[in-house]
Amino acid sequence: MMNVNRYAVLFEPVQIGPLIARNRFYQVPHCSGLGHLRPQAEAAMRAMKAEGGWAVVANQETEIHPSSDLSPASEHRLWDERDIPALRLMTDAVREKGALSAIELVHNGNHSPNLLTRAPVLAPSDMSIDSLYPKQARAMDKEDIREFRRWHRSAAQRAVDAGFDIIYVYAGHRMTLTQHFLLPEYNNRTDEYGGSLENRARLIRELLEDTREVVEGHCAVAMRFAVEEKRGKQGMQAQEEGRAVVEMLAELPDIWDVNISDWSNDSATTRFEPDDGYQNEYIKFVKDVTTKPVVAVGRLTSPDMMVAMVEKGIVDFIGAARPSIADPFLPSKIAEGRIDEIRECIGCNICVSSDSLGIPIRCTQNPTMGEEWRRGWHPEKIEPKGSEEEALVIGAGPAGLECTMQLAKRGYKVTLAEGSDELGGRALRESRLLGLNAWQRVADNRIYDLKQRANVQLFLESRLDANQVAELDIANVFIATGARWRKDGVGRSARKPLIPAPDMILLTPDDIMSGIFPDNGPVLIYDDDQSYIGGVIAEHLAARNLEIIFVTPAGVVSPWTTHTLEQARVHASLIEHGVDIRTSHMLSKAGAGECEVTCVYSGRQKTIKCRSVVLVTERQRNNSLHNTLLAMRHSGELPGVKTLELIGDAAAPGLIADAVYDGHMAARNFEMDPAHAASQIYRREIPSLELI
Amino acid sequence: MMNVNRYAVLFEPVQIGPLIARNRFYQVPHCSGLGHLRPQAEAAMRAMKAEGGWAVVANQETEIHPSSDLSPASEHRLWDERDIPALRLMTDAVREKGALSAIELVHNGNHSPNLLTRAPVLAPSDMSIDSLYPKQARAMDKEDIREFRRWHRSAAQRAVDAGFDIIYVYAGHRMTLTQHFLLPEYNNRTDEYGGSLENRARLIRELLEDTREVVEGHCAVAMRFAVEEKRGKQGMQAQEEGRAVVEMLAELPDIWDVNISDWSNDSATTRFEPDDGYQNEYIKFVKDVTTKPVVAVGRLTSPDMMVAMVEKGIVDFIGAARPSIADPFLPSKIAEGRIDEIRECIGCNICVSSDSLGIPIRCTQNPTMGEEWRRGWHPEKIEPKGSEEEALVIGAGPAGLECTMQLAKRGYKVTLAEGSDELGGRALRESRLLGLNAWQRVADNRIYDLKQRANVQLFLESRLDANQVAELDIANVFIATGARWRKDGVGRSARKPLIPAPDMILLTPDDIMSGIFPDNGPVLIYDDDQSYIGGVIAEHLAARNLEIIFVTPAGVVSPWTTHTLEQARVHASLIEHGVDIRTSHMLSKAGAGECEVTCVYSGRQKTIKCRSVVLVTERQRNNSLHNTLLAMRHSGELPGVKTLELIGDAAAPGLIADAVYDGHMAARNFEMDPAHAASQIYRREIPSLELI
Repeated sequence: MMNVNRYAVLFEPVQIGPLIARNRFYQVPHCSGLGHLRPQAEAAMRAMKAEGGWAVVANQETEIHPSSDLSPASEHRLWDERDIPALRLMTDAVREKGALSAIELVHNGNHSPNLLTRAPVLAPSDMSIDSLYPKQARAMDKEDIREFRRWHRSAAQRAVDAGFDIIYVYAGHRMTLTQHFLLPEYNNRTDEYGGSLENRARLIRELLEDTREVVEGHCAVAMRFAVEEKRGKQGMQAQEEGRAVVEMLAELPDIWDVNISDWSNDSATTRFEPDDGYQNEYIKFVKDVTTKPVVAVGRLTSPDMMVAMVEKGIVDFIGAARPSIADPFLPSKIAEGRIDEIRECIGCNICVSSDSLGIPIRCTQNPTMGEEWRRGWHPEKIEPKGSEEEALVIGAGPAGLECTMQLAKRGYKVTLAEGSDELGGRALRESRLLGLNAWQRVADNRIYDLKQRANVQLFLESRLDANQVAELDIANVFIATGARWRKDGVGRSARKPLIPAPDMILLTPDDIMSGIFPDNGPVLIYDDDQSYIGGVIAEHLAARNLEIIFVTPAGVVSPWTTHTLEQARVHASLIEHGVDIRTSHMLSKAGAGECEVTCVYSGRQKTIKCRSVVLVTERQRNNSLHNTLLAMRHSGELPGVKTLELIGDAAAPGLIADAVYDGHMAARNFEMDPAHAASQIYRREIPSLELI
Repeated sequence: MMNVNRYAVLFEPVQIGPLIARNRFYQVPHCSGLGHLRPQAEAAMRAMKAEGGWAVVANQETEIHPSSDLSPASEHRLWDERDIPALRLMTDAVREKGALSAIELVHNGNHSPNLLTRAPVLAPSDMSIDSLYPKQARAMDKEDIREFRRWHRSAAQRAVDAGFDIIYVYAGHRMTLTQHFLLPEYNNRTDEYGGSLENRARLIRELLEDTREVVEGHCAVAMRFAVEEKRGKQGMQAQEEGRAVVEMLAELPDIWDVNISDWSNDSATTRFEPDDGYQNEYIKFVKDVTTKPVVAVGRLTSPDMMVAMVEKGIVDFIGAARPSIADPFLPSKIAEGRIDEIRECIGCNICVSSDSLGIPIRCTQNPTMGEEWRRGWHPEKIEPKGSEEEALVIGAGPAGLECTMQLAKRGYKVTLAEGSDELGGRALRESRLLGLNAWQRVADNRIYDLKQRANVQLFLESRLDANQVAELDIANVFIATGARWRKDGVGRSARKPLIPAPDMILLTPDDIMSGIFPDNGPVLIYDDDQSYIGGVIAEHLAARNLEIIFVTPAGVVSPWTTHTLEQARVHASLIEHGVDIRTSHMLSKAGAGECEVTCVYSGRQKTIKCRSVVLVTERQRNNSLHNTLLAMRHSGELPGVKTLELIGDAAAPGLIADAVYDGHMAARNFEMDPAHAASQIYRREIPSLELI
């Protein structure tokens, strides 16, 4: 790896306790939805980070005991020695690629509902559990605390046995028992674990001491700590108790991994926190009060900012979760001066959503994320072409761009024809809506790549019809013509079209993205899609001072964005923008100057006066070109066409992440043995039937 | 097994295709949350049903292909031959106990989001998926349909290879592709699979024919079909197309398993459908139009109703899901005339909730459900006593009653002291609220048992203090003193107590259950618990013509009841009762004649006039007796006490199911080697690390 001088400081080795990290790139612990259910996939994913140049690769929350049972979520588990072999897969793989491996031991306290184990839920004081289940945690007594320390020690020993280099003590994200002890709100104990900050921090101190004893100087001990909760005086503040905790425990760990709490603050999306490095103001004090190395995060993708953070003495390590997901080869690319090739995180939190949903991690920017083991995908490598076949890709949205780029990387000659006057399709169009600017990076990264390649021809304003496709006579055609929002109201809540009054103006998100706005209000936005776009459109139009009424069958605004940690922010933002929110109602009629909405529970109807309606319900595939070509092929009119494949939203509307994935897969599978390609979808990890 | 004449008809063998079922008890397919992630636990649970006398024991939805991927839910999976060994565990175990095993093959169409496999989602026509994810299904083309039939045939062959006796074709619960083809709402095809009913039913006919071919007369083919949707003309109606479908396919399957759709109608709770046998009116036509045996459900627990249903020619088999969960030994008990010992399903749908939550099945009435493998629990057998120890159980709620009953079954002499004048505690108290009457069965079943036993002494109105406990000088004390609802507003949304104005009347669910009502309205019910009780209290008070304002931080009423399939019904019922529902607000002040509520999103405040407030927030453990006894033991004042154990809500407030479970476990673990008892919680199934 060649260091480029400007960024040389990032490639200095740094000592962490008894170990040397090869550079300053540190993948902090992050969830993956792989975890204990999918240990081979987890190991392959982490190893890819190590291969990409990260000096430290951490795993994710690792339950130390059955009383910290996050089922059905699949984090890691180290309850007893039976879990060691699964974790060793990861440490071996990471070590082989030259990185240190770290493990984040955790007891989740009242954040773990223990629904699999049915173990008692533990907390500093009696309280409800931290999820929607009628179950309460009990205050730990002294014996519980002794037991907890014993569990943590044993887990630390098992972590050593599994081959980890760095063992975490973890107090953050409002999800961990040790942090719960710190917070007066959660801790009303009157013994030596409650009251003064020293008392509330006692448990953390003990765990750090215990862990140091266990590792006997062979491993490093890391402290992950949320210095700030962004709740003002209601919570921990960086300049108050946050600082005091670091001062108190300053030299006990070998490294401080600091961030802000809760998870929605730590993993803020670009929609609500557009600037990278947004945690610096909170964590910058840490290096002033400890001599130990410090790692911090904040969606850091700019090498210049990284250098500045090191040079200003804010951090020793550049921490990353999401940027390492979007680009596992971020360190290598910086080392090699390939800055423009960095696949920048767009801050959409699709990665986060997979944890919340209990499914394998995915990424909008990096379609190989989570597929390293199952499909054997590498983010930077792809099988070279097996022939001199040529390809035509129709449509330059996320699927078309990705498919073109990967086919081109494979060495095929590719023609990309886009009907509009710009490349990027939906990614670009959505990026023009309020808050989604960073999503443009999906297009930018791929356009940059394509423009370097001699084997790609890009055509704008080339809306091909079937005859034109036939005339081009290219043997392999990938059709990525996208989808458009329905204008008839059909969606989740109604499969029958709405018959609007002739004078009612009906618009869709496509209109808004094209700059066609309702000229004055009130505008009724009907969100039956319930993901993100309805809320975005509402903000976008409200910011233009239009009077907005937001109607949705859901109980809250944009409920799906709970998975991206945004829902509360979206809802609050709409209220702040003065949007009139009407939940639990379907749109049943669009009449003359007014709409009828129907309560989803009672069937009762109400009338709402409005001048126009924006329908955010469902999408229709732009698949007519594909259908025509299919029919032509069927009747022998396309003798030269071998491949005719519909990809992305045109095949099935989904997230941008799904479209990119689909375009990527089409390029990977092109000219692959069909049986082999088909077999990959069956690949999975299944339980052992060994009798125990 | 001795047949009692009165019920003899239930024990007649019945032919199903080439097979003979030993009697008329048929456990229809039901989800378990065990499934492919926990195959050993699943096999043990199903085998217990076979041991309990069921003639047929079915598994649950079994995904036939990666494009029907319900992850993270753990149903069964039979994607390829790798899944056969896990299912064979079940068929072997069920056969060993003399029952036939059945498998419910399924393709879930747009109900399966395919979030693990990322396979395309399939449906008769283009449409959104059936869950909250921005992803759409694509209309299947002819090739897709051919492929689908091939997958189903292959899965049927694998099912035969796994040892199943009965193979299902499944069109029900609004969750299956075949049913989606049947419904005009979902199917707007213009080919031979759309349009006429014959066309829409074509796929089912083909699957039945395909499956018959595969099994070659060695296995039976079952058709599970929802004859009615309870949506009027909007959906399928039993007397219209429901009947026509059965007529059309009458003799194709070997058995008809009929029910109503969707799942919330099929598995209706007693709260909204108090009468057993509630499906009879819909399914009774089926036997008129087919010569094949018919099985149907409807929370059937009364042997007299079962006999009547057979004798009237409504069914040939008594189908059961929930009653077989509450009492796996229901058939044996009827056979042996032990009718009063039947542990009747209370229709609470806690079993259903575990599927929705992706966790192992549990049951309010039967604490051993789901624990057959992990803890080795048998619903009817328990280790006999190992000594002449005696036990005192304090508190006759769900935990105390269960603990007493199990200790007594083990042969110990047990004294049960209850402070009030009735046995049943919380189960009895909650059963007096509107809709929860059936919950009394939790108490009834146990009281009946205890009254038969000579080694149990029951004391009512015996509120023991610590000195009295000491004086009793019983060596083993189990304290089941329950919990009470907090009166200070502390709960999920606020950890600081509310300071009410002196003239504001504050009540809790305990007051309502004790018959202390607000004398006139408006009554503000504040539901920060968000499970079931807040909604129940609102209905209960509204039915007394009180003006109710229902305030909750949640977006909908009683959101947790989504898991019990009740949420829409609860919400609708409150609206019907005229309750003024204010979602997304916390109670922030209880002033003089009015309350202040705060928007959880914006922090904006509103004032609501009310005369009283019912606080449904969190519970406080009644653990002072335990604390006093602990202190006495610590200071040597209880020399004779060996065991001092807090159980049930007094240990940690939860569901009634949790309290019963905790009482059961305490009795099981009594005098067990502590290391062995402690080890059970670690028992789990983990992935194979075999490299594939």
